[in-house]
Amino acid sequence: MSTVYLNGEFIPKDQAFISVDDRGFLFGDGIYEVTAAYKGQLYHWDRHLARASRGLKALRIEFDLSPLEEIHNQLLEKNDLLEAPVSYVYLQITRGVAKRTHKFPPNPVEPTVYMFAGEYQRPSRERWEEGYTSVTVHDVRWLRRDLKTIQLLPNVLGAQAPVDQGADEIVFVQDGMAIEGSHNYLFMVFGDVIVTHPLSNQILGGITRSVLLELAADLGYQVQERCVPLEEMFTADEIFHSGTLSEVKPCIAVDGKPIGNGKVGPVTRALFDAFLADTERAGRSG
Amino acid sequence: MSTVYLNGEFIPKDQAFISVDDRGFLFGDGIYEVTAAYKGQLYHWDRHLARASRGLKALRIEFDLSPLEEIHNQLLEKNDLLEAPVSYVYLQITRGVAKRTHKFPPNPVEPTVYMFAGEYQRPSRERWEEGYTSVTVHDVRWLRRDLKTIQLLPNVLGAQAPVDQGADEIVFVQDGMAIEGSHNYLFMVFGDVIVTHPLSNQILGGITRSVLLELAADLGYQVQERCVPLEEMFTADEIFHSGTLSEVKPCIAVDGKPIGNGKVGPVTRALFDAFLADTERAGRSG
Repeated sequence: MSTVYLNGEFIPKDQAFISVDDRGFLFGDGIYEVTAAYKGQLYHWDRHLARASRGLKALRIEFDLSPLEEIHNQLLEKNDLLEAPVSYVYLQITRGVAKRTHKFPPNPVEPTVYMFAGEYQRPSRERWEEGYTSVTVHDVRWLRRDLKTIQLLPNVLGAQAPVDQGADEIVFVQDGMAIEGSHNYLFMVFGDVIVTHPLSNQILGGITRSVLLELAADLGYQVQERCVPLEEMFTADEIFHSGTLSEVKPCIAVDGKPIGNGKVGPVTRALFDAFLADTERAGRSG
Repeated sequence: MSTVYLNGEFIPKDQAFISVDDRGFLFGDGIYEVTAAYKGQLYHWDRHLARASRGLKALRIEFDLSPLEEIHNQLLEKNDLLEAPVSYVYLQITRGVAKRTHKFPPNPVEPTVYMFAGEYQRPSRERWEEGYTSVTVHDVRWLRRDLKTIQLLPNVLGAQAPVDQGADEIVFVQDGMAIEGSHNYLFMVFGDVIVTHPLSNQILGGITRSVLLELAADLGYQVQERCVPLEEMFTADEIFHSGTLSEVKPCIAVDGKPIGNGKVGPVTRALFDAFLADTERAGRSG
């Protein structure tokens, strides 16, 4: 049984319960983060912290995040993940427990803080080299996607589409534009130009997204952050998804149509290798 | 301590806990209903049942709703609400408890069913006659508002706006149109024409909304279901909000600008009286 963290205590997961009055349960009134760790070293915790802090501010939930890095590390240790090649810590903070009313509780309550850790099994390189497929899904999410909140039902319904259709990932499409995935970003390669959706209320400002844009620039690729119409997306030489646990995930077909030559491309491969090297450096830094 | 219903058991509320793995808590992956009862008689349960059934179907949650009417009645009885002038039962159904993954749990799990009941204190007629005020809020909700899900964070943030601004309710505005409130509908009166937003993915198809449209027709008013631009809304003779516990709530000003003559109007009053009479009939029917 894994050990989780709930409101100040480390407890077995099967003993971790929250009140039915928790505003996470009643309203989806909270934020979350998933931080990767390589050989027990948190990867860009400072960026996750900054995003969580911004999210809490937007939701007007007052909570001191500074003790959380240490709790992340303790969770990794208590779950024997310090030597795991790739692991992660999930963090969720809700507005807390109060009598149900849409508006904020009239008297301040303590936020609920829940965290758990797990190991991530990276697919074999052989599997990775086969590539993955995606399907398009009409994007009906709310318009504050820049906040990493637990308003995730459209992501849930979206993520089920590839399960139903025998694919792996999705491309959310809104107003004819290819936006992002259900739990990761979308990158398109045109020649030596790497394109992804610009930061806005339409997408989450992501940690892996920013890391990959930096690595791409280091590798000498031109980087463009702009909206890409779906029909242009289909003309890309390569497409990949990226995210904390998606890392760099090559997409060789969307809606059954091959992207480029229908094989994992050299730019995707170069970026994945650069990403792996970066995470290995992070894993050795401890 | 009130008695609530959770997964087959009637228990004191302070003993009602759910797992941290509940998909309601992690994803907002569920639906809810709030059904009014007048002197212990559920009001239009058949319509709530139909909406809940439609919601579960859209979310692809399999659950037999037929035992729930009896549980509603038992909750009213166990909480001594059979003689209360106005009470309500809250029902929430989530996809259940499973290891966190966006897509549906690969192995079916039992949905989580949570219900509680409470008394609603209708404001005095004197207070009602003073009217209420609203403020406009930019509508950032997701685009399946026709489903009564627990994706309610934008409603929460919206409902806080009048608290901050010294008002009572909100008018969600999207693409320049006056849509609905954070937890109720918006009706506008122009002469003897009563207008409300048409059924679509933009609003919840509501029980009180349908009841009021029927009562309005019975009273001889012309009824229009159409989109109303915000600037037209400000020219209305009367505005009122309506909902299960909002009933008919007169709005005398929006964003500080008086609506009509800034007083509760005769059409709003006539509809409220007709609504009260209808709920009294329902309360006597037991």
